[in-house]
Amino acid sequence: MQVVTTQSGLGRIEDGAIALLDTAFPHVGAVLEQDGSLQGLASCAVRRRIPLDQATLVAPLGRPRAVWGVGLNYESKAARAGRGVPEHPILYLAASSGVLAPGAQVVIPQAATEPDYEGEIAVVVARRLYQASESEVWPAIAGITAANDMTARDVMRTTTIPALAKSYPGFTPLGASIRTPDDLADRDAIRVRTRVNGELVQDDTSAGMIFAVTELLSRLSWFAALEPGDVVLTGTPAGTGQDRGCFLADGDEIRVEVDGVLPLVTHVVRPADVSPHDHRLTEPVS
Amino acid sequence: MQVVTTQSGLGRIEDGAIALLDTAFPHVGAVLEQDGSLQGLASCAVRRRIPLDQATLVAPLGRPRAVWGVGLNYESKAARAGRGVPEHPILYLAASSGVLAPGAQVVIPQAATEPDYEGEIAVVVARRLYQASESEVWPAIAGITAANDMTARDVMRTTTIPALAKSYPGFTPLGASIRTPDDLADRDAIRVRTRVNGELVQDDTSAGMIFAVTELLSRLSWFAALEPGDVVLTGTPAGTGQDRGCFLADGDEIRVEVDGVLPLVTHVVRPADVSPHDHRLTEPVS
Repeated sequence: MQVVTTQSGLGRIEDGAIALLDTAFPHVGAVLEQDGSLQGLASCAVRRRIPLDQATLVAPLGRPRAVWGVGLNYESKAARAGRGVPEHPILYLAASSGVLAPGAQVVIPQAATEPDYEGEIAVVVARRLYQASESEVWPAIAGITAANDMTARDVMRTTTIPALAKSYPGFTPLGASIRTPDDLADRDAIRVRTRVNGELVQDDTSAGMIFAVTELLSRLSWFAALEPGDVVLTGTPAGTGQDRGCFLADGDEIRVEVDGVLPLVTHVVRPADVSPHDHRLTEPVS
Repeated sequence: MQVVTTQSGLGRIEDGAIALLDTAFPHVGAVLEQDGSLQGLASCAVRRRIPLDQATLVAPLGRPRAVWGVGLNYESKAARAGRGVPEHPILYLAASSGVLAPGAQVVIPQAATEPDYEGEIAVVVARRLYQASESEVWPAIAGITAANDMTARDVMRTTTIPALAKSYPGFTPLGASIRTPDDLADRDAIRVRTRVNGELVQDDTSAGMIFAVTELLSRLSWFAALEPGDVVLTGTPAGTGQDRGCFLADGDEIRVEVDGVLPLVTHVVRPADVSPHDHRLTEPVS
C-alpha cells in the first residue's frame, strides 16, 4: 500500500490515481500516533478518486515529533569523503519545523552560503522501539518515503552542530508518498537516486549502507525511544554537492527518487544578495 | 496565570487549588498549536475545583515537537567547569520522547552509568520565532516552567552527542505548571534551585545566564524556526552531580524549583545490576 496526505485528506495510490479516504485523520502521522499502524487505511472506504496530477500533496506526516538523521552511513559516501567507516552511527536530531511538503519551494536563508541536498531513504515508525533488537525493527516500521536532508555546509563547518546546519525552515523535504514495507520489492536493497535539474547525481541502494536500517534503528533505540510517527533519515550516498564542489543555486530543482514511492521534488529559491558576513554565528551580537 | 495539565483536563491554579477548565484541549501544547496563546484559558469557564494534592498532573505540553537545550549557559557553571565563556550558545535538540510527567519515576537504563540531573528554567513558545530580534522574543513566549535536563555523563563523554546522552525515556522531566510571563516578578532574574533528597545543590537566577533568554532564543531562531508548543531548556547553573562528583542513585528524589511555578519532582529508579559493559556503544555489534 502507498499512502499520501493531500489538501483534501488522506489517500491511497491506486492504479496511478489517488483514492481519497473516508477518514478524519489530518495526516499519516496522526494515524500512526493513534493506531500504531497504517493497516486501517487499507480497508478505509473511498470518498472519490482524483488523478495524481490534480492533487496537492502536503507533508505526509504533518510536523513529526522527531526527525533523526545519521552522518556518513553509505560506503560510497565514506569512500568519497576519504574518511574511514565509522564504528558507531553518527546520530543527530533535526528540528521538525524544517519539514517541507513535496513539490514546495525552499527559501535558502541569506546566512547559509553553502546549501546542499542529501537524497535519502526515510523510515517512518509505527510502533514504539526502545532497546529493540534488529529483528524487532521492520515489524515496527510503518513505511518508507523519500527525504532530502538539506544541509548548510558552511554552518556545519563553523558550528559542528547538525541540528543547526539542518534545521532551517524547508531544509527537510519529506514525501511524496509512504510505502508500507510489506510490498517493497527488496527491503535490503532499496534504491535511492537524486537528480539536480535532471542530472543524476546520487545513485545507490540501501545495500550500500554501513549501518543497515535494522541495525541503525536498533542502535538508536538503545539511547532513545522511537515513537509512532517519528522519522529516521538513513543517510545519504556519495554525490552530494559537497562531493561535486557545487552548492544549490536559485531555480534549482532537486528530485529524490526512492523505490516504490512518488518522487520528492523541491524547488530552490535563493535570494540574490547573499552575503557570507550576514550571519549571527560569524558576527556574534556580543 | 499559572496553568497545569491534569488527568482530568486542563486547569488554572487559583488560590492554591486547581480550577478545572471547560475545554476539550488535551494539554497545554495543543492549546498553543491551535491558538498561539494561553489567553483563551484565562477566561475559560470552570467545571469544578479540586485541591492541588488531589490532582494527578501529567506532562503539561504532552509530547512537544521540539525540545532545544543549551550547554554551559551560566557563568557559575562555566566557572565551576573551569571552561571559558562560550562565544556562541552550544545548542542541541533532545528527543521529546524523553519528556516525563511531574512527580513520575525515571528508570535509569543499565547502560547509563553516570546519570545526572540539570535543574533548568524551560521556556515554552507561543508564536513562531524565525530570525527574530531579541525584542520579539518575550512577546512570543507562552510561559516558563521547570525542567530537569537529565544527562548520562558517560554517554556524553563516549559519544559527544547530546541527543544521545539526554534522550532516554524519562530523562526530560518537565512541569509541574506553566506560568505566563506577564505576571513574573522579574523575568530577567528568575530563580532556579535544585534539591536532591532535600539538599540544596543548585541555586542561581537567570541573571547569571551567559546568553539571556532573549538573546538565546533570538540566536536559535537564526538557524531554526521555533513553533508554538516548542520548548527551550535554557541551561543549568553550577551544582550538578558532575560538579559534585556524584551521580544519581536508586531512590533519589530530585526537585527543581523555578520562580512562580509548581516544583518539579522526579523519583529515580536505578536497577541494581548496572554493568558498565552492557552498552552498545562500548561493545559494538559489528
